[in-house]
Amino acid sequence: MNNFVFYSPTEFVFGKNTESEVGALARKYGANKVLILYGGGSVVRSGLLDRVQKALEEVGIDYCCMGGIQPNPIDSKVYEGIDICRERQIDMLIPVGGGSVIDTAKAIAVGTLYDGDFWDFYIGKAIAKTALKVAVVLTIPAAGSEGSGNTVITKVETLQKLSLRTPSVLRPVFSIMNPELTYTLPAYQTACGVADMMAHIMERYFTNTQEVEVSDRLCEGTLTAIINEAPKALVNPMDYGARANLMWSGMIAHNGTCGVGCEEDWASHFLEHEISAIYDVAHGAGLSVIFPAWMTWMVGHNVDKIAQYAIRVWNVSPHSDKKTIALEGISRLKSFFVSLGLPVNFKQLGIDTPDIDRMVNGLHHNKGELVGNFVKLTRSDSKDIYQLACLPFETGK
Amino acid sequence: MNNFVFYSPTEFVFGKNTESEVGALARKYGANKVLILYGGGSVVRSGLLDRVQKALEEVGIDYCCMGGIQPNPIDSKVYEGIDICRERQIDMLIPVGGGSVIDTAKAIAVGTLYDGDFWDFYIGKAIAKTALKVAVVLTIPAAGSEGSGNTVITKVETLQKLSLRTPSVLRPVFSIMNPELTYTLPAYQTACGVADMMAHIMERYFTNTQEVEVSDRLCEGTLTAIINEAPKALVNPMDYGARANLMWSGMIAHNGTCGVGCEEDWASHFLEHEISAIYDVAHGAGLSVIFPAWMTWMVGHNVDKIAQYAIRVWNVSPHSDKKTIALEGISRLKSFFVSLGLPVNFKQLGIDTPDIDRMVNGLHHNKGELVGNFVKLTRSDSKDIYQLACLPFETGK
Repeated sequence: MNNFVFYSPTEFVFGKNTESEVGALARKYGANKVLILYGGGSVVRSGLLDRVQKALEEVGIDYCCMGGIQPNPIDSKVYEGIDICRERQIDMLIPVGGGSVIDTAKAIAVGTLYDGDFWDFYIGKAIAKTALKVAVVLTIPAAGSEGSGNTVITKVETLQKLSLRTPSVLRPVFSIMNPELTYTLPAYQTACGVADMMAHIMERYFTNTQEVEVSDRLCEGTLTAIINEAPKALVNPMDYGARANLMWSGMIAHNGTCGVGCEEDWASHFLEHEISAIYDVAHGAGLSVIFPAWMTWMVGHNVDKIAQYAIRVWNVSPHSDKKTIALEGISRLKSFFVSLGLPVNFKQLGIDTPDIDRMVNGLHHNKGELVGNFVKLTRSDSKDIYQLACLPFETGK
Repeated sequence: MNNFVFYSPTEFVFGKNTESEVGALARKYGANKVLILYGGGSVVRSGLLDRVQKALEEVGIDYCCMGGIQPNPIDSKVYEGIDICRERQIDMLIPVGGGSVIDTAKAIAVGTLYDGDFWDFYIGKAIAKTALKVAVVLTIPAAGSEGSGNTVITKVETLQKLSLRTPSVLRPVFSIMNPELTYTLPAYQTACGVADMMAHIMERYFTNTQEVEVSDRLCEGTLTAIINEAPKALVNPMDYGARANLMWSGMIAHNGTCGVGCEEDWASHFLEHEISAIYDVAHGAGLSVIFPAWMTWMVGHNVDKIAQYAIRVWNVSPHSDKKTIALEGISRLKSFFVSLGLPVNFKQLGIDTPDIDRMVNGLHHNKGELVGNFVKLTRSDSKDIYQLACLPFETGK
């Protein structure tokens, strides 16, 4: 086990009707003037935005709003938000939504207090040391941004989708998580969220760090919970227990609980960012294509932990050689994704002829000549993985 | 799943040599004058106390010390500490030790800022709202006090062992966790710590709350990790990986990660507190006696989750009736405790004729006529459980 710091100071307020507490919580954490952020019209139509506004009004907190944040959030909304925060002297951002809205809020939070271009933080030109406070009302369990110090933004001009990871600067001060708010989430979006949270765990689980038994068990346990609960939420979108377990799993998957003391990988995420930056597909759908391809490549290069995963998470019989065990585990993962309606290759993702050379170039331009840690991927390796993601898959094969 | 708040704002600094960071961390969290607390002479003899003092001196933090805190910590040391804190205007307490030292520090932290008797908080006469800052250098993984807002103190005059549980007031601001500091922990004390951390998980796991899949899996995973790592630490006390996994498991077991959204039980802890208050045995040893007895009683009253535990944690075959499955799981738990050198009945604990009536009276005097939640225990039920804890057990039976 490696040395580590685990610091997750967010106050998570979880359960039915908890959005009504947003005013009292914002007051408790010192808000005077709030910028509420949201995406499309669903938070307006559902009345959630109204309820959040009323809760703030009741405690006398002034606020303004910025909507229209899209999936795969882009830099222009960040600049717009920074202008608002400076003009109105905002001291807390409250994104009401999922990862895109929260990540935009975090970018605004760190950019507002910085004289240069906020993008400097994403390209490593500046280190984030301070930010406006961010507090979350979560409506889409997936990104885990409600519990993490991370944010991902796409710069439209260069089609770069890059992440900023801070140990604590961008952790939300509080996150309100009401599973009922996810009842109306469409099946495909629910499934994409499931793929995203599973990927967050697996990026940490596939590590070369030894003697990480408790981390392994926490990862395997959370993955098992997600695998058991996701189908229930798709069959009955108003299954509170399934929605609640998925929502909490999404947070656990990404606040650092899983993977403490491990060297993490993240190559699959970076491979995916190149896909969704160019083709504007859902991040979770990109992950359900790329993660099994990455794992399949790994069977030939670092098989042990893939086999452990197959046995412990997918109940593959251990009485076989490791390669066979590992491939069976990957096949069960793909079948699971397919059962949720997710794609497991480029064609199913709607990309018949992916521009692999462009993605490989983008990946290694953004992330260096070697990407990931489980095996450090060269350009040639990345190309192999994108090509594996082109192969057909039929359930049961 | 029930509504819940999860708030664990402690910064955990984990790994080799991390105690050298205590000065910088104390400075970061605003300490000016520190009271260092410790137990017996081992932190003196090992040189740890010296290293902590030097780290504080290096950043110019003034400090004084109070040693001599014993296992099953008592009120007189709390009063002594409160006097020191008031006289010296201490603003941060740094316990260097395990649960007893940390719990004493927490009692002093809350008592110093209160005009009345600190004991008021433990008997429910006052609500803790503010406290001096507490930061931890952990040397004994067991109590989980390094990550919790709880403290347990014994009042000598009345032999009452009572807990104060705060959602956040008494959470340490930071906790330094170096597994190397546990290399010298004797086998019996290591084993007692294992029983304590397992009990912390099981108090949460045995719940009637439904649809808590992710909580269940986190509990089962952490229990499995402890069961796999504990024997390694006993065979080779300097096995870093085993010590590290146990140390982190002890924190996870009690900071709230396990059991979110569940109605918790805690009857076994309260049953045990009566034992260690009267007989001054190690809390963990008392738990290894009482928890299996509690579970055995539950087989006749609320068997389902005991059977689930037997199957998932102890790999008992599911192809039998629930009662048989549950009893086999309990038998494996007892065998595991015995293999660690722990007692599983009163006689092995060194108490040939336990004063059961006195313990039953103490329990229900302190905790009310009904104790616990999984099944609410009457006086008659508690008596049954203490009597079950008198039965002989031989491994393999």
